[in-house]
Order: sequence, then C-alpha cells, then structure tokens
Amino acid sequence: MTTPPWNRLRLRSNNEWLLLERLRLEGPASRAQLARDSGLSKPTVSSALAALERAGLVREAGTHAQSRGRVAVLYEPDPRAGHVLGIDIGRARLRTAVADLTGAIVSRTEVRNRGRSAGAVADAAVTCAEQALADAGLSQTDIVHTAVATPGVLDRHTGRVRYAVNLPGWGRPGLIERMRDRLGTPLSVHNDANLAALGEYTFGAGADSHLFVYVLIGTGLGMGVVADGELFLGAHGAAGEIGFLPLDGVPASGAAPRRGMLEDAVSADAVVRAARALGMTGPLTAKRVFDAARTGDRAALAAVRQEGERLALVVASVTAVLDPDLVVLGGGVGRGADLLLATVGETLHRLTPLRPRVEPSRTGADAVLFGAITTALRAARPLLFERLTGRGSERGPTEVPEMQKTPD
Amino acid sequence: MTTPPWNRLRLRSNNEWLLLERLRLEGPASRAQLARDSGLSKPTVSSALAALERAGLVREAGTHAQSRGRVAVLYEPDPRAGHVLGIDIGRARLRTAVADLTGAIVSRTEVRNRGRSAGAVADAAVTCAEQALADAGLSQTDIVHTAVATPGVLDRHTGRVRYAVNLPGWGRPGLIERMRDRLGTPLSVHNDANLAALGEYTFGAGADSHLFVYVLIGTGLGMGVVADGELFLGAHGAAGEIGFLPLDGVPASGAAPRRGMLEDAVSADAVVRAARALGMTGPLTAKRVFDAARTGDRAALAAVRQEGERLALVVASVTAVLDPDLVVLGGGVGRGADLLLATVGETLHRLTPLRPRVEPSRTGADAVLFGAITTALRAARPLLFERLTGRGSERGPTEVPEMQKTPD
Repeated sequence: MTTPPWNRLRLRSNNEWLLLERLRLEGPASRAQLARDSGLSKPTVSSALAALERAGLVREAGTHAQSRGRVAVLYEPDPRAGHVLGIDIGRARLRTAVADLTGAIVSRTEVRNRGRSAGAVADAAVTCAEQALADAGLSQTDIVHTAVATPGVLDRHTGRVRYAVNLPGWGRPGLIERMRDRLGTPLSVHNDANLAALGEYTFGAGADSHLFVYVLIGTGLGMGVVADGELFLGAHGAAGEIGFLPLDGVPASGAAPRRGMLEDAVSADAVVRAARALGMTGPLTAKRVFDAARTGDRAALAAVRQEGERLALVVASVTAVLDPDLVVLGGGVGRGADLLLATVGETLHRLTPLRPRVEPSRTGADAVLFGAITTALRAARPLLFERLTGRGSERGPTEVPEMQKTPD
Repeated sequence: MTTPPWNRLRLRSNNEWLLLERLRLEGPASRAQLARDSGLSKPTVSSALAALERAGLVREAGTHAQSRGRVAVLYEPDPRAGHVLGIDIGRARLRTAVADLTGAIVSRTEVRNRGRSAGAVADAAVTCAEQALADAGLSQTDIVHTAVATPGVLDRHTGRVRYAVNLPGWGRPGLIERMRDRLGTPLSVHNDANLAALGEYTFGAGADSHLFVYVLIGTGLGMGVVADGELFLGAHGAAGEIGFLPLDGVPASGAAPRRGMLEDAVSADAVVRAARALGMTGPLTAKRVFDAARTGDRAALAAVRQEGERLALVVASVTAVLDPDLVVLGGGVGRGADLLLATVGETLHRLTPLRPRVEPSRTGADAVLFGAITTALRAARPLLFERLTGRGSERGPTEVPEMQKTPD
C-alpha cells in the first residue's frame, strides 16, 4: 500500500528504526551523539537502544573517552542479527554468497553451469546455495532474504522471466516457485545487469556517482542504471535493455523485430566473429582476442577497435537519453576495458559533446553477486526489524524500502 | 544542505506543513478528518489550522453535514496566499502566465519573438511578463517565484545556457541576472523540453504514467522525462538531449561532433526539406506539409511517412534505455501526430518488442508554459510557507521539494 507523502510523519515516528538506520549509515555512536543527531531526547534514545539490544539488532561496540574522564558506551548494529543469500545465475557459471547484516560475505560457492534444462539450472543453483549455507554453518531459517540474478526481465504479472535469450527455457513458468520452495526463504528475482550495476555502485567504481550506468558486455548485452543510489527500473522493469537499441536504422518492411542487431554487434561473440573476419584463426574466445591484442596482433587489435567504436555508439546513445556522470564497462568484454577505453573515448569525441567518464569495472565477475547481496540486504533489514521488534507493518518499517528509493 | 534520511523525523515534525500538503493533495477536509488521516491529535490539528489561517495559507471552504445533525467546517489552502509567474522563451513566440497557488491561471500574454539579440529577447520577455502582472492586477511583490523556460541546458557553474542552438546569443553570460533584476522576483531557469514534459504530465496526457516521456519536435528536438511525478534531469541536467543520439553511426575520423544528425533529420525543418526533395513546391512550413498530407498530397504523405520512421527510431532508442509506459509527441511537428502515429506504430513493430504507448500532446503549444507554472508552484509553496509562518529553514519546509522528488 502506498502511503501519501503528507502522512509520513506517522511512519517516521518509529524512533527505533530511525536510530538503527543512523547507526548503520553513520557508524557507531553513543547515546549522547544519537540524541544530538536525531533531535530525540536522551531518555527516548536510551529506551529505544534498550529495545534494539533486547531484540538482538544492536550491540555495544566499545567505549569512547569523553571530557572530564567520563566514558561513553558506543553502539552499532549487530551483524549477526540475520544473514542474506545472493545467487547469480549466469549462462557459464552459477555463483552464490552468504553475507551478514553488514554486508560482509561469510561464505561463497561457484560452479560451472552444466544445466541442460532450465529446471536443472534452478536445481543446481539451489544446491550451490545450500553448500554456501553449510560452509557458513547456517541453515535456511537463518536467511532473512534471498535475491536471485538472472538475464532477462521478470514479468510481475505472469511471474515469468522474459527476454532471457541466453538461458534457453528460463522463461517457462514455475521456475521461481521451485527455487523458492526448495530454499524455503523469501526470494526475489532481478535482472542481472541491474544487480551488477548495484553491486558495482556499492562495492566498486560507482560510489561517488549521482547517475551511474553499468554496461554488462558478455554473452549478451545489458545495462543497469543507479540514480542517487537506487536502481532505475523503468515502467516495466525493462530499462537498460540496450540489446534493443536500433543503431542500424529501420529494417525492411515485413522483418520481425529481433533482439540485438546491436547485441549481435557488441557481445563477446561479436568480438570473436570480428577477429575471425579480420584473419585470426584457431579456437577463439573474446578473452583470447584481447590477450592477442595485448601482444600486438593486428587482427585482434582491429577487432578490439571495432568493438570500441560500437561501444562508443552505445555510450553516446545512453548519454543522450540519461546524462550519466559515470559509465562502467563490465562483464567478460568489459574485462578488456584497458584495451577498449582509448577507442571508446576517441569515438565519443567524434560522436557527441556529452561525454561521461567511462571506466572499467572494479568488481569484475563479482558485480552481479555483490548486487544480489545488496538487494537482499535492503529487503532483509526492515523485515528483520519487524520480526525482532514485533512492530506491525502498518506503522512499521516494511514501508521503508520504498521510501529509500531516493536518499537525499 | 542535504539531510540524512534517518533524520527526517525532525523535518517531518512540522505539523502545519504536513496538514497544508494534505489539504492541497487530497482536497478540503474537516478537523476530524485531518486528525484521522494524519494520526495527529485533534487539539494539535486545531492549533495547526489556526496558525495556518492566521498566516493566510488556509481558509474555510464551506461545511460538511455530519451524523446527529452536527456540521463540520471544511478547510482548504487559500489560493490567494501568493502567485507565481511562468515565462516560455521560444524562438518564434514569447509566452507568459500568472497563476494563483492552486495553479489556476489568472492572466496570460503572448507575443512574437522579434528580438534581434539575446538581450532584446530577455527584455521582451520581461515586458510580456509585466503585462501579464498588470492584467492580473498584481505587482512584482505578489510573485513568490518565477520559472523561465529556454532551449538548452543551464550550466549551474557558469550560470549560462548551453546547447541553445536555436536562440542565437542566448548562451552569453548575464542574461539570467538581467531578467532576475528587472523582474525583482526569485527566478529559476529550466530546459523547455523538461518543462513541457512536466506541463503535459500535470495538465495533459501524462497523469497516469509512472515513467513519462515527452518528445518536443519543433524548431529543434528535445525530450523531457517525468519519473513518478518528478523530472528526471540526469547528472548535469542534460538528460533527454536526444538531438545528440548517434543514429547515423560513427562519423569519419576528424569530423567534429555536431548536434543533430538526428535533430536535422527530425525537426520541423527536416519535414520541410523532405517534402521539397519529394517534389512539393512553394513556401513551405511543417504545418503546410501536414495540411497537404491531410488532403492526400503524395509528396506530403511521403515526407510525413519519413518523419514517422525517424521518430520511431527515437522512440525505440529511448525505450531501450528508459522503458517508459507513455511517450507523448509534442511541439510543432507533434501537432501532426494524427498523421504520424500510424507510421510510428508500424515502424516500432519492426524495430523492437519494447513498445510504449505513443500519444499526441493534449496541452499543445501550452505545454512549456504549463510546466513553468508547475515548477514555479513547487518552488513557491515551501518559500511562502516559510515566509508566512516565520518558520526557519533548518527544520522547515525548504527541504521538502527535494524530498518530493519521488512521491511513493
């Protein structure tokens, strides 16, 4: 239920939630500091902290020397209050991680994706997650929320994943329910490029960006946008589906719309195809083409240059629409960013006066998984608060994630 | 100063502001209704209403029959508490309007833009605004805020307007200060396509859209995005500068980036050029081409078809990045939307499976001016509240517009 803005006073009146958020966002603090920062009275702060300690959400975090020899106790959120699970379902690999409430990763697993059917992939992902739980000495009931990353767009009406062209069968109904049932935890599904953007923003290169774009170039082509710390999803969750950018003009009458004239031209396979057309031989992957370019191979350099020019068209298109201050290149092809950036930069200068910073990913292959952890934490915190303090959802923090969409 | 989210309790504690917003957003209400809706006690509501009435911000709005024959007094915001001014500086015409605090327009003026220099344009706009004030029986001091629409992007660092290619000289320094000094009111400057988007969203076709895109096709090509009721501006205010979309590929090495391979191909002039190339003769404007197409002129129909195909490329590009649920075609060319929409729709079907609704503007030539009024009102309300109630800005409502950026 949406709460009208003029009624937020009511929601905001939850002092315990506000103080817990203060401790999480700004670090450990004493009662006196919290009273000063929040505008609440010291007795109110004391009783709220006592309630949070009883609930297991806050713990003492050492002491702080004050004037006149007095010592103040510092408080911090208790990271052991609950854990979250992140699952990255990639075409090549399945990755999972368990994190505590501060986001510290306590265990992780990774296996090759050998699934021959979508059901087998879902089962393998769950098995992988169960291993991570066992490694951390935790059980399903310790997990407050699980976030799953997949290619494609989750259709909220049908519960099916659409446009996941690189995971055959992944769009069929019931898969999400199957994972949810086996894991036995609250579970949400998200687009992998969106989670990669959130992961890179939170743990990587995006920290100081107000409007952050992450381009995921690998098996496919995807993009995630983080505006003031929150994912920008579009009206139907399909924002950033840049595989559908029409950079080759209007197709002939009668032709069916096809994902990816652009995707075909920019993905890892495109780098391989270009290198082959330019004369490289032998078994090729995008990584091998980049490695050859680093040794000065002419065909490889030309293929990389072509890829850089196509990426510049993507960056220029996205910039004309969104005006980001930072674009990060990630995914398998993004790991060749050291080779691509010069061409991207030069080409942008020829294309447009609107030029954001373009940088390589710092989180590499972990971006998606880190984004899943970030997303699971955002869902888990209010849920856990509600469960442990017994606050009802009407006045309570389940409304908060929605409000957090644009922190100031 | 940005206020951390955990400290909003303090800002939100302003009961008077919250009740005023409640009355504005949900309509007249009695004390009892307000107490029920806000969670505040009846005595708190009564004293807040009394303070708002004394300040001239709220007035009685009739009565409401209750059970047992009792009658409750209804309250509403007083529209006469202050006025705002909107100014639209277009290449062809200058438009101004004065509105009361409810957004009702009380006077407006419109003249041809005959300015031979940017200074002359600024002066003519001010004279036009002064006429609107006089017509409304108001003086400068009655205006709480003025919002000015211009092509281009305001650079906050230099105070100059950039990319306003269709208003020669408009980028030179001091113009904004000149208007501000002559008008003697607080004044802000905004991109015309952004204001048109906000105007169409508020007064026209956008009301039910979560992610709304307005494409302004006239002398130039612009776009505004409204996400959950708030303008999406990008990191530097240049979001929607789609004149820079690189839909013609990478230019030859050494060529300078030029606004608008796309703008040249889609603007009103492009329609005229296409019609001429297709065989139309005589003095042509985009309007004449559309009129001829409506009578079945073949060259005109072909020119319109070409324009529709180019517009479909724009819509497809914007959709791949943003995923809007509604795209409105506005501006001079947008007024030919009845002729363009079929081609846009057919072409979109060939380009992409992601297809938002595409509709004609309902506010027509008034979109920009309506957006200026909306923007001026958003700035004026907290300013006026502060001025009339004497609340300081530290705890007060000057923080509120920022928070309103994403109403839930």
